[in-house]
Amino acid sequence: MALGEVFLIPTVLQDDETALESLPINIINTVRNCQVIFTENERTTRRHLKKMDRNIVIDNFQWFTIGKIEDSILDTFSQQLQLGKNVAIVSEAGCPGIADPGQFLIAEAQKINAKIHPLVGPSSILLALMASGMNGQNFHFMGYLPVDTTERKNAIRKIESMSINDNCTFIFIETPYRNVPLVKDIISNTKPSTRLCIAANITAASENIRTKSIQDWKKEDLNYLHKQPTIFLLDGGRQYAPKSHY
Amino acid sequence: MALGEVFLIPTVLQDDETALESLPINIINTVRNCQVIFTENERTTRRHLKKMDRNIVIDNFQWFTIGKIEDSILDTFSQQLQLGKNVAIVSEAGCPGIADPGQFLIAEAQKINAKIHPLVGPSSILLALMASGMNGQNFHFMGYLPVDTTERKNAIRKIESMSINDNCTFIFIETPYRNVPLVKDIISNTKPSTRLCIAANITAASENIRTKSIQDWKKEDLNYLHKQPTIFLLDGGRQYAPKSHY
Repeated sequence: MALGEVFLIPTVLQDDETALESLPINIINTVRNCQVIFTENERTTRRHLKKMDRNIVIDNFQWFTIGKIEDSILDTFSQQLQLGKNVAIVSEAGCPGIADPGQFLIAEAQKINAKIHPLVGPSSILLALMASGMNGQNFHFMGYLPVDTTERKNAIRKIESMSINDNCTFIFIETPYRNVPLVKDIISNTKPSTRLCIAANITAASENIRTKSIQDWKKEDLNYLHKQPTIFLLDGGRQYAPKSHY
Repeated sequence: MALGEVFLIPTVLQDDETALESLPINIINTVRNCQVIFTENERTTRRHLKKMDRNIVIDNFQWFTIGKIEDSILDTFSQQLQLGKNVAIVSEAGCPGIADPGQFLIAEAQKINAKIHPLVGPSSILLALMASGMNGQNFHFMGYLPVDTTERKNAIRKIESMSINDNCTFIFIETPYRNVPLVKDIISNTKPSTRLCIAANITAASENIRTKSIQDWKKEDLNYLHKQPTIFLLDGGRQYAPKSHY
């Protein structure tokens, strides 16, 4: 029997109508073509699929929760593919495989040579980078910075220095309720000319993506970031010099 | 007068019907809402917009070619926004601002505090990373490797060593006619256990994204990559160990 195929299904980043428009129309048809769904959260995935297509019969799918990655879930996943079933992997938000446990299932699918189809959808990393005006030729996403204050300050200084030396944009995230302390640490531990992009509520109606130098951010009240899903981009590298670049 | 807003319009990566389905439906409505288009290539953008909506009146837009970035084009861009016009920025392929000259216009828009809206679309970087099964918590896109053979081999060894030390996925591209020599250089300059993902023709019907260890790639004929748009991902870091990770 031919192996089943794996479809990586992106979901919205925000729970509003604007965000729903950011998904390509082929996603729901692709899900219809699958028999099995592996998801981080069955309840939100069920609700999301219903929002995309109210005629979809949710109970026709076999459901598995990814949650804790253990050998048993990898075995189940692998068995479903070997039974010839098409499997959808769905994230809690955004793109499966990017900062996400789905990645381990995908690695398993690669091991057994199953065909994998990534579908286009919203990624806060990529959307923020596009809108930042920062270097998109060389960038590094590094997830979360350390929580410990001293370690975090050191990490920020190290990021800035690597960014200057390699002309590289660094991208990182934080748990939303820690955004304000993080941004204060960034502002007080970097050079005035370094550029920081603060990208909040991406794809929502309240989306707000702004790049400023540290000296300009210092003039702003940044408390609006409290509890807003935000991604940060730092670029200490040389800025665009029109005549010399091309 | 209120400043115009900037919309970052992604386009297809491949010129086939399958690829067209990867675009969200709201893109064409967003373009309709703009008065001015800045594009890398006017001819392909005109054709692409017509494909998305044959009723669109192409000549209603004011067209500017990005091409060589000089002060004059930045001035023109800035003037259009100050006239209150909504501006679309369109790449030759993929997402504006990512490995793309549109980035300089976006930086200019950030400088004058224009609102910038990145739209969801296909990025070979992100789609390949999703499907690779590699580390999506820590990754570095670095554009092209050096063309000089000795420098390139050194770069490959350096990438592998950084990937192992930092547990980071490195992502890079090559001009399609140089894919085969590049992949040969990778295979002969990395450890047998290092994983390499070769992602070709992303979003096309012929899409082919496979991750294997270097020792497994050695058994394959890789000449099929000649002149196929391809992106490479290298991960020498520790692989998933179910019990210990969560």
